[in-house]
Amino acid sequence: MLNVCLIGAGRIGRIHAANLAANPRARLAAVVDVHVPAAEELAAAQGARALAPEQAFDADGLDAVIIASSTDTHHDLVSRAAARGLAILCEKPLDLDLDRASASVEVAARAGVPLFLGFNRRFDPSFRRVHDTVRGGGLGAIEVISITSRDPAPPPADYVGRSGGLFRDMMIHDLDMALWMLGEMPASVYASGACLVDPAIGEAGDIDTATVVLTTASGVQCQVTNSRRCAYGYDQRLEVFCAGGVARAGNETATTVAVGTGEGFVTEPALPFFLERYEQAYRLQLDAFIDAVGGHRDATQTGLATGEEAVQSLRLAAAAQRSLASGAAESP
Amino acid sequence: MLNVCLIGAGRIGRIHAANLAANPRARLAAVVDVHVPAAEELAAAQGARALAPEQAFDADGLDAVIIASSTDTHHDLVSRAAARGLAILCEKPLDLDLDRASASVEVAARAGVPLFLGFNRRFDPSFRRVHDTVRGGGLGAIEVISITSRDPAPPPADYVGRSGGLFRDMMIHDLDMALWMLGEMPASVYASGACLVDPAIGEAGDIDTATVVLTTASGVQCQVTNSRRCAYGYDQRLEVFCAGGVARAGNETATTVAVGTGEGFVTEPALPFFLERYEQAYRLQLDAFIDAVGGHRDATQTGLATGEEAVQSLRLAAAAQRSLASGAAESP
Amino acid sequence: MLNVCLIGAGRIGRIHAANLAANPRARLAAVVDVHVPAAEELAAAQGARALAPEQAFDADGLDAVIIASSTDTHHDLVSRAAARGLAILCEKPLDLDLDRASASVEVAARAGVPLFLGFNRRFDPSFRRVHDTVRGGGLGAIEVISITSRDPAPPPADYVGRSGGLFRDMMIHDLDMALWMLGEMPASVYASGACLVDPAIGEAGDIDTATVVLTTASGVQCQVTNSRRCAYGYDQRLEVFCAGGVARAGNETATTVAVGTGEGFVTEPALPFFLERYEQAYRLQLDAFIDAVGGHRDATQTGLATGEEAVQSLRLAAAAQRSLASGAAESP
Amino acid sequence: MLNVCLIGAGRIGRIHAANLAANPRARLAAVVDVHVPAAEELAAAQGARALAPEQAFDADGLDAVIIASSTDTHHDLVSRAAARGLAILCEKPLDLDLDRASASVEVAARAGVPLFLGFNRRFDPSFRRVHDTVRGGGLGAIEVISITSRDPAPPPADYVGRSGGLFRDMMIHDLDMALWMLGEMPASVYASGACLVDPAIGEAGDIDTATVVLTTASGVQCQVTNSRRCAYGYDQRLEVFCAGGVARAGNETATTVAVGTGEGFVTEPALPFFLERYEQAYRLQLDAFIDAVGGHRDATQTGLATGEEAVQSLRLAAAAQRSLASGAAESP
Repeated sequence: MLNVCLIGAGRIGRIHAANLAANPRARLAAVVDVHVPAAEELAAAQGARALAPEQAFDADGLDAVIIASSTDTHHDLVSRAAARGLAILCEKPLDLDLDRASASVEVAARAGVPLFLGFNRRFDPSFRRVHDTVRGGGLGAIEVISITSRDPAPPPADYVGRSGGLFRDMMIHDLDMALWMLGEMPASVYASGACLVDPAIGEAGDIDTATVVLTTASGVQCQVTNSRRCAYGYDQRLEVFCAGGVARAGNETATTVAVGTGEGFVTEPALPFFLERYEQAYRLQLDAFIDAVGGHRDATQTGLATGEEAVQSLRLAAAAQRSLASGAAESP
Repeated sequence: MLNVCLIGAGRIGRIHAANLAANPRARLAAVVDVHVPAAEELAAAQGARALAPEQAFDADGLDAVIIASSTDTHHDLVSRAAARGLAILCEKPLDLDLDRASASVEVAARAGVPLFLGFNRRFDPSFRRVHDTVRGGGLGAIEVISITSRDPAPPPADYVGRSGGLFRDMMIHDLDMALWMLGEMPASVYASGACLVDPAIGEAGDIDTATVVLTTASGVQCQVTNSRRCAYGYDQRLEVFCAGGVARAGNETATTVAVGTGEGFVTEPALPFFLERYEQAYRLQLDAFIDAVGGHRDATQTGLATGEEAVQSLRLAAAAQRSLASGAAESP
Repeated sequence: MLNVCLIGAGRIGRIHAANLAANPRARLAAVVDVHVPAAEELAAAQGARALAPEQAFDADGLDAVIIASSTDTHHDLVSRAAARGLAILCEKPLDLDLDRASASVEVAARAGVPLFLGFNRRFDPSFRRVHDTVRGGGLGAIEVISITSRDPAPPPADYVGRSGGLFRDMMIHDLDMALWMLGEMPASVYASGACLVDPAIGEAGDIDTATVVLTTASGVQCQVTNSRRCAYGYDQRLEVFCAGGVARAGNETATTVAVGTGEGFVTEPALPFFLERYEQAYRLQLDAFIDAVGGHRDATQTGLATGEEAVQSLRLAAAAQRSLASGAAESP
Repeated sequence: MLNVCLIGAGRIGRIHAANLAANPRARLAAVVDVHVPAAEELAAAQGARALAPEQAFDADGLDAVIIASSTDTHHDLVSRAAARGLAILCEKPLDLDLDRASASVEVAARAGVPLFLGFNRRFDPSFRRVHDTVRGGGLGAIEVISITSRDPAPPPADYVGRSGGLFRDMMIHDLDMALWMLGEMPASVYASGACLVDPAIGEAGDIDTATVVLTTASGVQCQVTNSRRCAYGYDQRLEVFCAGGVARAGNETATTVAVGTGEGFVTEPALPFFLERYEQAYRLQLDAFIDAVGGHRDATQTGLATGEEAVQSLRLAAAAQRSLASGAAESP
């Protein structure tokens, strides 16, 4: 039984809390939030303790911590958790600043605690199936990867301002997906981007539509396309083209219904957003974390993103940002 | 908060127990099973009382009962629950004997307690969408319904012997679906059937493959096809052809992955069986039961199958059985 | 080079003429029509002779005849062609009268001329693929066949009156498909039918919506559903369920385009009618006829429907008609 | 009736010849080929004259010319045809050299003859439907275009050497598609590419796998991915993402058959190559050419690619080639 302290009682925190409640191998021991009543409400429902951030690790018998608080708190929390010897699952990004993110990884390494990042898409059953198919080698060498990732609606402009920008806030998931599929760090990053969706995003200094091409040393190519708005739901697709074939994952829908008339057949749009699409992925990610921390499986076999990999995806995001300015491919 | 007594700690009972645990509007108050340790195990996990069948309704403060025990116990349990004034959700079939099933409905009616049957497929989101589309009238008059229902593998022959036969045990779900879609009782029933899958089923006096045609007084036709074995998973599909178009529901799959090679594209088989396919349906059915019992929604608006409808589907199954013997269409 | 006399310059005759023109192994030698100007127009375009029906076989050097004139002329034309020793491809049905159809088959047999029926769907690439897959045995024994066949719009009521009725005019194609897939004559036929589409069809003494179940001696079941009207195009589908799996053929569409918005994804309706859906089938059927007549392939290997098989499908249609009246399954 | 001289009796020439034969509004008057027997064979089948290249335009009564000979002959033929006042449909590319291509356009313009390029994909019904949907404005502003184009197998290395390279030989089709969808010339072109398929292609100084990003002045992005080899057939897909939704065109298949077993469902690979996929497109392109030349429709309404557009796509290809070397986005 893994005793877990959850930090952050917001939207993603509540997902983790529900998954902890349903998981027979873990127990929600404490909930921490800057807004203590929010922590209390979530804790009460499961018989857990509610703690303020400064007491975060005072609860006895903790084994692990899930960090789902705002990005600017991650480094401090990782450091304190590492000092207590707790295993860590931290929501992405590790930090908006590459140096501080690297420092977090070092702190955890020195303390000998496992540090994983919440790149939940690795646990989506469809993406996982594609990964296992192409990395398993049955389709031959990977040659071209195409990742499509579009949010249903743009975030509030004030969020955009402190988000770190589209590459580090949104595309970071796709960059991690690329890394996971490629199994190596790309050698160059090119980015094209613009503000086509919401002028307020542009005024906040960011873009809302981007296309990025990653190229490895051997010439394997990966294209990523992002939009902050998508009329037909949360668009999350992947295609890996290999020497011997292709593996694709498409969108999920609420039902399988098709209605046909003289105008044609109408089927469902994509699921609305990540809560629906990645419901199962969050659950499976928690299972993998329990496996890895409990030593039930080699961490590298679980597919969990490590701190080192999180730093790599941040480096890719930073290179994309530089490329957007320079108009040339950049080394990450 | 609805206090529920669950009768039956088997496979379906455990589904109900998990859904009760996750539902904020209901509480599992007691678990009853002929095998008391099974009841105790399930009860313990949720702080409920474990009771032997004879004490089933001794728990205080009960509001409702979910009957998921063997079919031969249904009539007695319905009668006793009705006597206590408890709302009832009973797994199908109400009874293998049409007279006793009718008696159960009368007992509940006299006691003024709501009696619903666990025809869970009505709560499958895809079938529900088809129902709402065609019953809402947007496609014009219903003309032909096609229902495909195939189990992944035949049940043990000894189960077949006491199952009541394919029509009452398996096709009863599809007959209920037909009733729900048609909104009226068919006027004739024709059945063709054979033992093509497993000779042991034939030796037990049953068939394993059947095609049934229901025809209403106005000539609307409904074809149902059943098999006790299906190589590609649990095949559960529906098509409703109307004057102005068609609505179809297909199978669900574990992932959306397609793998393409020179041999073509391979996609997933259907989900394995009802636990996977109807996971969401069981949860939504419980919600509807809570709504109906709590008066939050008119019971007829919830889509729950009533005791009267359960008797109708049993009459259709009995007519199919007679037709199989006579070779002629029979009145239900 | 096969010299062919085409009888009938109507819609289907023109399809045959165009396919003959494009086929390097055949030559349209003569066109015959009761309306001579129609024959002349079609003949002129290809340098063929135009003939009145009474001269139909006077052209020298004829090898074969394609009969695409009205059904009531078939018997006489088959007899005269057989007397001349011409190979015959006759549009369905051979005759509305079972005795006269049988007589046509005998006449051809006595004359030693090959007589094939234009059951063009056997040459649809998708249905052919299903046939070859299931008859090839790779999916194990056939257990249940489902055939869906819906015309886009009902024919004029005056056509209905002389059509021979839905079973012999429309479902005959599906009954032939069933025979071809099953590879044996069913032992019983049950029909349910009604006039749901167009009251004028009912007034003409026919039905427009029908469901038929064929059952073989061993219990294999085949369901056929027909409608004279279909909002979403010409609906032509087939599913063959076998012990080891299933093979399905769906509808074809004009494009592969999907347009997605918040309302979902819209794809094309089915192709409009048989001219579009079976364009390729008519061409492939002609090729098979040339192969069979020229001795290039064993006639039974071409998949062409023989006169004997045409009589079998007529017997099934007649049994369906009797079943509709009796309400019981009938022997064909 | 348009009298057409066809230059080139190779693979594509034969497609044009067959389409001319079947088109009631055009007549194949002459066939020209450096290999005169090839011209004679094609001409004989349709009663046309066979001519050597130097006599190409000596035939009387010519209205138009279709140029399907090798690329290095295009400029000379366009000039001579323009001098005779013939309307021109020229296979792509106009020329490998941008200056000479521009000169061809000028020559035709000065002579006042229409010059169109054989970018046949514009007449593929699915791509046309996407174009008309998004250019019609029903989905709002275009934001991101994704074009996938993969050949089934690499060409011989000696062809590669004189092909002008992947961008001008293969991707030129996709660059034209991008121009046609965008309706404007992109402002920058970035290319990533490598030799991953066949080392012989690398030895010939070319690449076989490429990803290109085009960006317009307003920031609209278009990604193109090419491979010279594709295991699952000829992969030709398009997606246009707009403010209000998306329009997609997928691959076509030989049949609609799906075969399901415990391993899942298998459907067809993509059609083998361009002869199959664009069979209809070549026919519709010829129709459009006849319309445009005959003044039946405004040329700009037919969707035919003009000489000016052909020069634009060549400029994009040249910019891609420069970008591949520089690693930076280039202006076309």
